[in-house]
Amino acid sequence: MTYPVWVNGVEGGSLLPSDRGLAYGDGLFETLRVENRRAVFAEAHFSRLAASAAALGIPLRQAELLAGFSRFLLSCPASCVAKIVLTRGSSGRGYLPNEEAPSTVIFSAHPLPAYPESFQSDGVVADISGLRLGLQPMLAGHKHLNRLEQVMLRREQAMLSADEMLVCDLDGHVVEGVSSNIFLVRDGELGTPLLDRAGVHGVMRGQIMAQAARLGINVTESRYAADAFLSADEVFFCNSVNGIWPVRRLPGRQWQPGPVTRQLQSFWQDALGL
Amino acid sequence: MTYPVWVNGVEGGSLLPSDRGLAYGDGLFETLRVENRRAVFAEAHFSRLAASAAALGIPLRQAELLAGFSRFLLSCPASCVAKIVLTRGSSGRGYLPNEEAPSTVIFSAHPLPAYPESFQSDGVVADISGLRLGLQPMLAGHKHLNRLEQVMLRREQAMLSADEMLVCDLDGHVVEGVSSNIFLVRDGELGTPLLDRAGVHGVMRGQIMAQAARLGINVTESRYAADAFLSADEVFFCNSVNGIWPVRRLPGRQWQPGPVTRQLQSFWQDALGL
Repeated sequence: MTYPVWVNGVEGGSLLPSDRGLAYGDGLFETLRVENRRAVFAEAHFSRLAASAAALGIPLRQAELLAGFSRFLLSCPASCVAKIVLTRGSSGRGYLPNEEAPSTVIFSAHPLPAYPESFQSDGVVADISGLRLGLQPMLAGHKHLNRLEQVMLRREQAMLSADEMLVCDLDGHVVEGVSSNIFLVRDGELGTPLLDRAGVHGVMRGQIMAQAARLGINVTESRYAADAFLSADEVFFCNSVNGIWPVRRLPGRQWQPGPVTRQLQSFWQDALGL
Repeated sequence: MTYPVWVNGVEGGSLLPSDRGLAYGDGLFETLRVENRRAVFAEAHFSRLAASAAALGIPLRQAELLAGFSRFLLSCPASCVAKIVLTRGSSGRGYLPNEEAPSTVIFSAHPLPAYPESFQSDGVVADISGLRLGLQPMLAGHKHLNRLEQVMLRREQAMLSADEMLVCDLDGHVVEGVSSNIFLVRDGELGTPLLDRAGVHGVMRGQIMAQAARLGINVTESRYAADAFLSADEVFFCNSVNGIWPVRRLPGRQWQPGPVTRQLQSFWQDALGL
């Protein structure tokens, strides 16, 4: 199985050292689950990318991107993870962008991650991170390339051998997991952290909120302390690659996967079309 | 005049799309002023790089780096800007680093910036940014590759046609300029913002503090509102490439370059050895 990489449409292409994605993390990315050569929730990924590119002023030719990605998918394994990186292209030294420079677009395919089946069926053992996400409303929500916080968190997670971690911001409010969003269930209703000062507006998070609306399940976005999760009826992590992971343990609390989590997992299975 | 770029010791080398510097801004950089083939304050740059690499857990072979950079300098124009980028190397998809992967080291040379001579002699016209730096103590001080905030600031600065900008954090405390640190002078003493929650510990900032100590000038690191700068006797920006820029105008206030600023500018001239 080969996993192709295209840089600006060139297979196996490489990158200029002057690319601003490297120099400043000046760009965005998307990570899509591919099943049967179909990218799951593709429309939501592309519209998030377009919205974030507009917010950061990164040029994006949507039609060209979509056409290129469709061609790229044909060269990928039928089941894989597809990643899109969009950067503000190359410029001279210094923070000032060259507003004329074409963006850089990188497509790459990767194996599906090899997590145990039990993460879906029985749930994950999560820890609470000792690190704190910073606060920056200007960048909150966007899946940009400034991800040093997540790198530091992921190293901590490996050290703790946790399946995922609940991560709080500087003020002690829960934001998300290391590489997923987080929901709680209380009295049959969903709650998830507000992402206006930190965190990523995950596509899977958005899909879950839309599906909850269709099912008549109320969803609240709010600021939660970790205690709200520890005392919830159900807790789960979600992202576009792995779907929904029930939490079966947090420090001081254990759960069995609950009915709302199961209902949303079946929505994910349907979306995969497997 | 040619300005070389070396990637891992290879002239004109390119970068893997899987480099973590690109994927996550997972790395650091240094920008050095080169005069007469000598990198000014080289020791301070290399020790900052080593300290930040240790803090973020990025492998760095100091002796090899120094030797490589010395060779690189021989291929550079006598006067230029030299940039060093250190990344955590390549890995698979996902935030987890490959702790075995060798770091990526990029050396590049660039023309000296073409600012008017008056920026040094008469000072700059600065504005106060409408954007706010986020708060993140874990990353504060490091010259890492997560610089989207500075990109957004630099675009604002271009729009405002400001020579530099005074930038505050979310709490309204002054942090720095867009690409420099900032000092004020009051009653013959220096003050500069604390950088424990945002900002970069600039090498020039450190050199100025050391020189002030040698001159018997007291330096205070503190949290300042913009008003403290507007009511100061002197204000200047500094960085390792451009030295010291007196501020001659901020909204609502004008200055002539003052005696402490002049004293520190002559220190910079000596350091350049011109």
